[in-house]
Amino acid sequence: MAPKNAPNLRKYQTSLVLLLEAAFIAIFYFFVNYEDYNVNGKRIPLDMYAEFQDVHVMVFFGFGFLMMFLRRYSFSSTGFNLLLAALAVQWATLMNGFLFSFRDGSITINLKSLVTANMCAASAVIAMGAVLGKSNPIQLILMTLLEVSGFIFNRWILKNVLRVDLLLSILHLHVFGAFFGLMMAWALSLPGKNRRHEKEKQSTTTSLFSMLGTIFLWMFWPSFNSAFLEKENEKMYAVYNTYFGMAVSAVTAFAVSVITSRKGQLNMAHIHSAVLAGGVAVSATAMMTTFPWIAMTLGFTAGVISVLGYRYARPMLNRSFGIHDTCGVLWIHGFPGIIGVLTKVIIKLVMAENIRMILKDLLFEYVALSATLALSLVLGMITGFLLKCKWWKPVPFHKHFDDQAYWEFPHLAMKL
Amino acid sequence: MAPKNAPNLRKYQTSLVLLLEAAFIAIFYFFVNYEDYNVNGKRIPLDMYAEFQDVHVMVFFGFGFLMMFLRRYSFSSTGFNLLLAALAVQWATLMNGFLFSFRDGSITINLKSLVTANMCAASAVIAMGAVLGKSNPIQLILMTLLEVSGFIFNRWILKNVLRVDLLLSILHLHVFGAFFGLMMAWALSLPGKNRRHEKEKQSTTTSLFSMLGTIFLWMFWPSFNSAFLEKENEKMYAVYNTYFGMAVSAVTAFAVSVITSRKGQLNMAHIHSAVLAGGVAVSATAMMTTFPWIAMTLGFTAGVISVLGYRYARPMLNRSFGIHDTCGVLWIHGFPGIIGVLTKVIIKLVMAENIRMILKDLLFEYVALSATLALSLVLGMITGFLLKCKWWKPVPFHKHFDDQAYWEFPHLAMKL
Amino acid sequence: MAPKNAPNLRKYQTSLVLLLEAAFIAIFYFFVNYEDYNVNGKRIPLDMYAEFQDVHVMVFFGFGFLMMFLRRYSFSSTGFNLLLAALAVQWATLMNGFLFSFRDGSITINLKSLVTANMCAASAVIAMGAVLGKSNPIQLILMTLLEVSGFIFNRWILKNVLRVDLLLSILHLHVFGAFFGLMMAWALSLPGKNRRHEKEKQSTTTSLFSMLGTIFLWMFWPSFNSAFLEKENEKMYAVYNTYFGMAVSAVTAFAVSVITSRKGQLNMAHIHSAVLAGGVAVSATAMMTTFPWIAMTLGFTAGVISVLGYRYARPMLNRSFGIHDTCGVLWIHGFPGIIGVLTKVIIKLVMAENIRMILKDLLFEYVALSATLALSLVLGMITGFLLKCKWWKPVPFHKHFDDQAYWEFPHLAMKL
Repeated sequence: MAPKNAPNLRKYQTSLVLLLEAAFIAIFYFFVNYEDYNVNGKRIPLDMYAEFQDVHVMVFFGFGFLMMFLRRYSFSSTGFNLLLAALAVQWATLMNGFLFSFRDGSITINLKSLVTANMCAASAVIAMGAVLGKSNPIQLILMTLLEVSGFIFNRWILKNVLRVDLLLSILHLHVFGAFFGLMMAWALSLPGKNRRHEKEKQSTTTSLFSMLGTIFLWMFWPSFNSAFLEKENEKMYAVYNTYFGMAVSAVTAFAVSVITSRKGQLNMAHIHSAVLAGGVAVSATAMMTTFPWIAMTLGFTAGVISVLGYRYARPMLNRSFGIHDTCGVLWIHGFPGIIGVLTKVIIKLVMAENIRMILKDLLFEYVALSATLALSLVLGMITGFLLKCKWWKPVPFHKHFDDQAYWEFPHLAMKL
Repeated sequence: MAPKNAPNLRKYQTSLVLLLEAAFIAIFYFFVNYEDYNVNGKRIPLDMYAEFQDVHVMVFFGFGFLMMFLRRYSFSSTGFNLLLAALAVQWATLMNGFLFSFRDGSITINLKSLVTANMCAASAVIAMGAVLGKSNPIQLILMTLLEVSGFIFNRWILKNVLRVDLLLSILHLHVFGAFFGLMMAWALSLPGKNRRHEKEKQSTTTSLFSMLGTIFLWMFWPSFNSAFLEKENEKMYAVYNTYFGMAVSAVTAFAVSVITSRKGQLNMAHIHSAVLAGGVAVSATAMMTTFPWIAMTLGFTAGVISVLGYRYARPMLNRSFGIHDTCGVLWIHGFPGIIGVLTKVIIKLVMAENIRMILKDLLFEYVALSATLALSLVLGMITGFLLKCKWWKPVPFHKHFDDQAYWEFPHLAMKL
Repeated sequence: MAPKNAPNLRKYQTSLVLLLEAAFIAIFYFFVNYEDYNVNGKRIPLDMYAEFQDVHVMVFFGFGFLMMFLRRYSFSSTGFNLLLAALAVQWATLMNGFLFSFRDGSITINLKSLVTANMCAASAVIAMGAVLGKSNPIQLILMTLLEVSGFIFNRWILKNVLRVDLLLSILHLHVFGAFFGLMMAWALSLPGKNRRHEKEKQSTTTSLFSMLGTIFLWMFWPSFNSAFLEKENEKMYAVYNTYFGMAVSAVTAFAVSVITSRKGQLNMAHIHSAVLAGGVAVSATAMMTTFPWIAMTLGFTAGVISVLGYRYARPMLNRSFGIHDTCGVLWIHGFPGIIGVLTKVIIKLVMAENIRMILKDLLFEYVALSATLALSLVLGMITGFLLKCKWWKPVPFHKHFDDQAYWEFPHLAMKL
């Protein structure tokens, strides 16, 4: 069955991608080189290689397979995730380099640059989750470039205006990616089309592949939350808190999912979302608390909110506001991220000896979160309307969630 | 097709899980905090993070996917594995803390605690393997709490009565988990129901997912056997011996599986079991031998016994004694574990210069194994009979091995 | 449906494998022991454990699942990969030991031996890729022994005749494995049978499993290319170059695959091949260049060549020369490997201050590559003709690409 009405993107996709890659290579040629450890005379932080690998696995494998749940969109989910993330790391390396480490006419790269680039790619991939199945590769590529630019520009603002630590500002990736994606989904929504799509289902096999991605994300999240922490005490606290927070959110998911079903049955999509929400919720405070119960309570809260939001608020947002969030990124990344920052504020308040002294600190946290939210919402909306333009040949409604628009099909094609 | 006769666990499961989590968080609040590396003035064993990650991957991903082979029970296998293991690590952290490191009214946690907790969770997950598909989540949660308690109590006995090193006693997890599970399976067996169940089959896809889990367990087993060894010589020997032992057991599995089939065909279930049996068999002696042939011989033996046991003894145990061992844990963990300890005794005997001097040592090994076996058998039986109680709404025979009793089904449910 | 005409290998396979294992254990008994770190008084390079794990994952899991794409050959692909790789590491440990580190009548093993053995196994597994689905386990086992012997013999020649560094010569594994496999495929080809085989197709699920293997290989390739580098500068350059080279080849694959399809659709098999070709292409120069653009250009070139070769040259080679390359190893490993060495020569030429001084160096590179090519072609052909012999009961054409010849089928067999 040929994808009759899906536009043929052949020439567009090839020329766009090749042009981009040629441009990237040219810019790298003129500006980018590697840190020389001999010259600096210092020992290398090779230990960061483990953190790099773990984050690498999460971005390229974890998210790529987590999003594979749609029964007829599995090739695109994992394929486009690879394409976008591989583009995003190149673009993020350049953007981060030019904005934060451009010296003597060149950008110097080390392992930290790679981890940072991977995390920026993660924010783009999260944004993709909200429009998964509803946009073509060309739209997704443009979205990636804009989202990564916006996210890094946000880091620049936070650093230069609010003096937020660069390594802390990267933790806003969940909130930025999720709300950017949501607004894009809203802007791209088609009038009268906020109804169920017959292809928007899971199959048993794609659910299991998605579980595979979920479990890898879940297991490596302690590395994600601790990757940039350099004081060993803080690093270990982040590992412990993430470990216990996620254990609790996993258990909680099984309790809450059952109660929301009349027949007392679990829903696999709830498990996929809720077990990860715990990792997002603890990310802002993971390095601060020296005992597990706060992280556990956060994991509990995130698990409950994530399942309830996914079951009740997600369809409501679609019906009432036309915000169709394919992967439920608002409930995995958006809300848990905000809860995390709020908890940080509360902890600082409670622990403060002199309330006045930390008021400025709290104000800064508040402004940083608001600025991130505002920028992601505005940029997401602009990006969404931009992508709606006929130039990019948007995919028609009846071809949503369908691999056949983009892939030659293996059981049809001979592999000689 | 609604699961007409499977009892609705809705309120029970939710209240049990939420109550447990609330209790855990409360106990953690009063008693648990993290080790402070600044106060102790010592450098942190951050290198243990790699071992932690590997064991983490094995418990949550490896076992969760290894057990996924049943064609209609894949959601439950991996889902319940996540639920039980996430519960078990919290409970094991508390139990281990109260019994072995309770000082000044509090438990102090470090990376070693997390690895230990993961290993205790592994023993619970192994026990679950024997009753997989035949018990509901409520039964499994109770089983987990009892099994972990029993296993840690066994460590306490071995430490205080027999002065067995705490870190060595944890290697009994294979034997304890397997025999606990077996007795549970026996106690739970239904009279006249030890016949074939029509749903107890593999599908091609679930077999491949199970192979995925198998391969990950196989690859990371050297980390499992060496995680707690601190002398670098011993650590490396454990890695080498496990590597070669498992290479041989993998190869052997392919030889023995073929000969047991009239048509000369391989059986995927044999491969899943036998390639892992080698890792269990070498675990007790892996740090002792400074040359590979003993580990290789152990791998060979374990591979042979595992395939033969799985093909011939497993159905016989079911028919004659009503012990239905779903995953064949007796042949992956039980017997190979015993073989490992016996080999350790033989090696000590052969290497002893003065036979008298080691007799006490050997006696202790013997008593430790017997005590572990006895406790696991008794506790497993008691747990089994406890779980048979009507209170827990046991799942009726015709709903065994069926996901539909516990999960909303993706190809039926719309995902809006 | 019983595999009526596939020969029953029952006794042959069992006796061959058991005999081999018995022989291996005996040789290990007499000659192999482990390095003793206390005696040498030096600290152990335990950091190599991470590299070991990553390469281990690539060989046993990555390649095993990459090759799983055939819709009716998934059990055999991953199963035989495990069997062959587990055999190969034992044989390679012995061969490498006897040729390169035999002292005082014994071979001493350390972590480096294990990584080397894994890499030799990788070359055998690559060669298997060319004849996947067309040879039975007995043929594959013989092939493995010969290929590993040939590859290690090639290292011996390069070391003793051309004084090529042992650790560099191992990077020829891609070229050696690929051309060995190709010639085997040519020699095994059946006259008049170079037409399409109806079973040589992918299914959606097997494609996704193959993508899983691809992504893991892609993610861990930086470790593969840097595993043996000991100067930290070189090691980091290898990681960076591989990271950027592979990011570009992944992106390029999506551009080129689309343009080769009339309907502008992607082909999953192109993605599987082309994203990896970048890692092979940069392997020879990864430690040399201190800026990313050369690796990125290599990744770009490899991506383009790999897709075009797979789409156009691969079927042509089959029709015109009877070289049927099941996995397209020529386009993943063969050509990209040669491109890598040629690039190395060009870089040395350009960077040379005095052209005369490096001419000898270049000549040596040229001779090393030619020698490797020649040996792999000749040995591959000989092996192919050897395997064609009726003794090994070659599998008839209509049973090619079919698991049922070798496996009991789970949905047919009860698992009691």
